[in-house]
Amino acid sequence: MNGRERFLSALRFEEVDRPPLWIMRQAGRYLPEYRALREKHSFIEICKTPELAIEATMQPIRRFGFDAAIVFSDILYIPEAMGQKLEYLDNGPRLEPLLESPQSINALRSPDVSSDLAFVAEAVSGLRKALALETALIGFSGAPFTLAHYMISPRSSRDFTAVKLFAYNYPAAYAQLLEMLTAAVGDYLLMQAQAGADVVQIFDSWGGELSPFDYETLALPYVHSLVERLHGGGYPVIYYVNGVAGIARQAASTGADVLGVDWRVGLADLRKTLGEETVLQGNLDPALLYAPNETIVARTHAMLDESGGRGHIVNLGKGITPDAPVAGVEALIEAVKSWRRR
Amino acid sequence: MNGRERFLSALRFEEVDRPPLWIMRQAGRYLPEYRALREKHSFIEICKTPELAIEATMQPIRRFGFDAAIVFSDILYIPEAMGQKLEYLDNGPRLEPLLESPQSINALRSPDVSSDLAFVAEAVSGLRKALALETALIGFSGAPFTLAHYMISPRSSRDFTAVKLFAYNYPAAYAQLLEMLTAAVGDYLLMQAQAGADVVQIFDSWGGELSPFDYETLALPYVHSLVERLHGGGYPVIYYVNGVAGIARQAASTGADVLGVDWRVGLADLRKTLGEETVLQGNLDPALLYAPNETIVARTHAMLDESGGRGHIVNLGKGITPDAPVAGVEALIEAVKSWRRR
Repeated sequence: MNGRERFLSALRFEEVDRPPLWIMRQAGRYLPEYRALREKHSFIEICKTPELAIEATMQPIRRFGFDAAIVFSDILYIPEAMGQKLEYLDNGPRLEPLLESPQSINALRSPDVSSDLAFVAEAVSGLRKALALETALIGFSGAPFTLAHYMISPRSSRDFTAVKLFAYNYPAAYAQLLEMLTAAVGDYLLMQAQAGADVVQIFDSWGGELSPFDYETLALPYVHSLVERLHGGGYPVIYYVNGVAGIARQAASTGADVLGVDWRVGLADLRKTLGEETVLQGNLDPALLYAPNETIVARTHAMLDESGGRGHIVNLGKGITPDAPVAGVEALIEAVKSWRRR
Repeated sequence: MNGRERFLSALRFEEVDRPPLWIMRQAGRYLPEYRALREKHSFIEICKTPELAIEATMQPIRRFGFDAAIVFSDILYIPEAMGQKLEYLDNGPRLEPLLESPQSINALRSPDVSSDLAFVAEAVSGLRKALALETALIGFSGAPFTLAHYMISPRSSRDFTAVKLFAYNYPAAYAQLLEMLTAAVGDYLLMQAQAGADVVQIFDSWGGELSPFDYETLALPYVHSLVERLHGGGYPVIYYVNGVAGIARQAASTGADVLGVDWRVGLADLRKTLGEETVLQGNLDPALLYAPNETIVARTHAMLDESGGRGHIVNLGKGITPDAPVAGVEALIEAVKSWRRR
């Protein structure tokens, strides 16, 4: 089995020779070759120049032979295409003007993703050629709620009060914004699938910050509609929710083919709640990569024992940290390869 | 029923006239009378001067008539008593020197809480007199893991890598630290119970950042032993875990009388996992207090419908934010009083 076969089989809960593996944010600052690329080009330049995006995407594939590649890009190009100005500062991205009132929604535009985000389609189709049918290719977008958080909240905010208050105080404007986002994200994901992505992943990095009631009203319906739209085109979907434990039932109800989950929940507990044949992606703590090799191997094997290695795409539970040691990634890869079903 | 009777009945899953209510960090910056007190005294001065701690504790009781008062203090006086220097800066507390190696554990001392933290016992016994048997009185401490995080990680860190790496790389030193903390916290909670607290709450503000495996090895055993020690003295325990959804079964296995939970999980889902007679405390999103009154009332009633109002101590799912509107607190109180079981 090659990586793509392994990945697509696991996604359908079919038998695999070993569980497939990729790592969220697998092209990035922890890699010396990526840091070398960044010395010559800004982050935004790499994202928006298809050849550079392809190079960044391929770096971890060449070095580690992961089973899936994810196109090198950023979730904030949708808000940018909708009219917010995007800058990357030392301490993170900044969108402006932030959305502060119902009127500010009216200033947004509905993007034409096929032109505004053509650079992503180009990178995806170039990657499809570069990877041939050896390695799976993943397209992605931020989930509508997660994007709304960035569009409304002061930059780098880990406080979600602003987006919640917008929703509580201006429910109609909130719905209008989320509908615009859902339309744009749907176009964007379809474009990536049509350009050659085997699957698309919706990143709901902050959906898990909502109470179940808020999640059900402010985040879930939009993801549900995205999954339906992708399925209508015949494309599979991975739905990643950070902080999924308390809303797992709801998140699974979107009908996504795979539920990507963070590390703060056990895979066996999730399967007990969601059904034994739920395909899961995850869920090692990114901090584990800094541990001694034997700890990395033991925890990875314990996780695979829990999932049985079936319907399980191995990943971290959140993006790899910028200073993670390469040796930790190597230990993780070896652990996945050395695991045997009991 | 007075507040104390209501609170203690709910804690035992007995019938109540209405669910009891208090708010985590209910004395604090959102109250004008607290800000007035802070104009004259520093935070640390209020904590360490029993008359001032009593005054701060009583302010929200006088204004709102909550069913329980929690002694005004801070979780970091245990690390301070163990030898770290504690300072409060504008952007939060700082402990130093941070624990960076096994050797740094040897520099810590086992505190004599009855002298080092006598000011807390004095405040508790003064509060017992002030409250008589009208209002329940809660003593508290940080949980050993949560305290270890603050002792190891750079200040105000919401990245938990440092404490995890300490545990992964120096397991014996980690265990030594947690055992010291557990002994000190146990002495401290017993001291507060003996001084007149009706119940003690253990705050595991960051236990939910651990994977279930890490939680079971790095946090849970120490809390379990604390609960046993308190129960040995005949004192009830509330165990609050922020981010509890993925580790609820384990957290409940401590045997604490009440499980305090954050807002990112449904109370009915928790009862399904833990048993229908599990006493829960929580769990409104603190952001809800900024919502329109009718939203606050609707959500509070929905939460009470879910718990049935039995074995349920109403609270937020996390501490109230410093700029929360007083009107939001008033709406919450009215909502609890106006709720009727269906």
